[in-house]
Amino acid sequence: MIAYPELHLTRYLHGPGPSDCDPRVLQALANPAVGHLDPDFLKIMADVQRLLRLVWQTENELTLPISGTGTAGMETAIANLVEPRDPVLVCVAGYFGERLVEMATRYGGDVARLDCGWGEVFDASQVADELHRRPAKLVAIVQAETSTGALQPIAEISKAVHEAGALLLVDAVTSLGGVSVGVDDNDIDAAYSCTQKCLSAPSGLSPFTFGPRAVEKLRNRKEKVRSFYLDLNLLQQYWEVPHVYHHTAPINMIFALHEALRLIEQESLAARITRHLTNAERLWEGLGELGLAMHVPLEHRLPSLTTVRVPEGIDEGAVRKRLLQDYKIEIGAGLGALKGKVWRVGLMGYASAPDRVSMLLDALKHVTVTA
Amino acid sequence: MIAYPELHLTRYLHGPGPSDCDPRVLQALANPAVGHLDPDFLKIMADVQRLLRLVWQTENELTLPISGTGTAGMETAIANLVEPRDPVLVCVAGYFGERLVEMATRYGGDVARLDCGWGEVFDASQVADELHRRPAKLVAIVQAETSTGALQPIAEISKAVHEAGALLLVDAVTSLGGVSVGVDDNDIDAAYSCTQKCLSAPSGLSPFTFGPRAVEKLRNRKEKVRSFYLDLNLLQQYWEVPHVYHHTAPINMIFALHEALRLIEQESLAARITRHLTNAERLWEGLGELGLAMHVPLEHRLPSLTTVRVPEGIDEGAVRKRLLQDYKIEIGAGLGALKGKVWRVGLMGYASAPDRVSMLLDALKHVTVTA
Repeated sequence: MIAYPELHLTRYLHGPGPSDCDPRVLQALANPAVGHLDPDFLKIMADVQRLLRLVWQTENELTLPISGTGTAGMETAIANLVEPRDPVLVCVAGYFGERLVEMATRYGGDVARLDCGWGEVFDASQVADELHRRPAKLVAIVQAETSTGALQPIAEISKAVHEAGALLLVDAVTSLGGVSVGVDDNDIDAAYSCTQKCLSAPSGLSPFTFGPRAVEKLRNRKEKVRSFYLDLNLLQQYWEVPHVYHHTAPINMIFALHEALRLIEQESLAARITRHLTNAERLWEGLGELGLAMHVPLEHRLPSLTTVRVPEGIDEGAVRKRLLQDYKIEIGAGLGALKGKVWRVGLMGYASAPDRVSMLLDALKHVTVTA
Repeated sequence: MIAYPELHLTRYLHGPGPSDCDPRVLQALANPAVGHLDPDFLKIMADVQRLLRLVWQTENELTLPISGTGTAGMETAIANLVEPRDPVLVCVAGYFGERLVEMATRYGGDVARLDCGWGEVFDASQVADELHRRPAKLVAIVQAETSTGALQPIAEISKAVHEAGALLLVDAVTSLGGVSVGVDDNDIDAAYSCTQKCLSAPSGLSPFTFGPRAVEKLRNRKEKVRSFYLDLNLLQQYWEVPHVYHHTAPINMIFALHEALRLIEQESLAARITRHLTNAERLWEGLGELGLAMHVPLEHRLPSLTTVRVPEGIDEGAVRKRLLQDYKIEIGAGLGALKGKVWRVGLMGYASAPDRVSMLLDALKHVTVTA
């Protein structure tokens, strides 16, 4: 076998994503393709839908992977739920909240925003008050902000949103498969995620789910969904019987997602969520012992992604560069308002493991002491 | 290593796509991921762009893969080139021409269509006459219709389009890497393709190129591109220095595309195009000897995809089923207007090979005789 010559180096992926794939996922990825309407492939599609429902913790029929990255998932949600002049409220707590504002605006929504500091979380009463002042048909929020490492209290916010008669759209890009999303328990109407973070599959697909109220909105649209590629009416007919041709699914990526989801089923979602928390707690404890401060208070901290404050007088880029060159470890830089101020350290999926925590802590100790 | 248990069967993919990947491509696909902003990955991105220019036969700077399938590539072209009320002419010669009409309409274009029979080609004078009657800013046409197996005379049509002052958008989904597209020689302004046909990479990316006139149109748009995910302004900044974050590239898919393009460079594009024609000619000769008629006249026939008329009294679905079950060979059914009337037989990329032609001809002979 001829190895791919560009990449003979190991990388330990502990940035904000992608995370390392499980070797079984890479094996599935490289399986020779079959036709996208092959009877065997249709069975795999159905099983992927079953497993996605398990990981989303939902009974939603319209649950499938979008054939694009997490950003395509975000656009699918907005394109199908927002019609021109629809009032939309976006809760902005970081970079990806800003992106939701931009996208809902491009799709013609009448967009209002509620802001909180980067690294802080909303109180449900703030959302209720804002919806009282200015009603909206849709409220969009990022559960786990990849740019800040804070986890929003979705259950409480969901109650406030539904009491105001709006639909709730949740970005679960950095939570699905590592932190509970609980679509049905939390009464979430629509949610999207990605494959390259807590699912530990390659980047390129976006797990997606639409509940009954979102489906009703979709069926009652006054105008066609502007995007053809992301039109859920067409995607549902393709994914479900009678499998009406819409596009050619990314077949090998579906193999990989299938295997990644099966690994979650085998471990059990509950055990996986506990594992993410346990390893994160050890990381936080160790970082504290190194004298490093975390940006987000413990009670709102995201297990899958930790933002670490860059100490005074340290060149944050030099630290990342040394980690990558000498230790093969990737961690992330700050994004947006936190650029230059934090590092972003991911413990996601396959890479949320005690050995990785030990390696990270010791490498960080050496590199920051000598920086 | 644990094999992916669902798919222990070999398949020979000779439908309209996906085609079989080269084993080297699958090897690259399964390489452990690196970060999407890793210095080594940025080098790979640049090399993918260089190789895409080679395969597109262009110097266009704005040449990159879209992070979605061929349909996403089509939507990228339309979303960036069409503004509301822009007059657009679509030359419709099959299923994917119809799709261009649908997509341009969704993006607000004032869309006219010029039709020809499914399996026929346009004469450039028809296009010139239509543009004289009703001027357009953009003319869109499918070079190689996957639904019919006919190859349009792009060089002549391009002259007519540019004499009328319009831009030319070409769908090269079933031609790129197997049939000459010649973006610069044919003065094509914009073109998109897919990865799972003549490039023999997995499905999920869409090679894309935009020439100087298309870039000028993009820069002078009155309103923002409606799609965020497919906004070429943002995609260009992500793919080129300074690599501004837009989405997380499908990293493993980029590895696979890189290797697939390198295989073309090693073989040479010219040799590959000759190979596609030579193997197709042998297939056509053999099909004739079996008494099977081809739907498209020889002079307009596409080497990568042949439409074969289903003889009277033959159950076309039963033939496909037996080929798949007994011979592991996939061929395609007819689509749209040709449903039930033709089979679609692909000889694409890695699978355009003498051994495959022999296997196909003998299997078809057995199965149609006993059907």
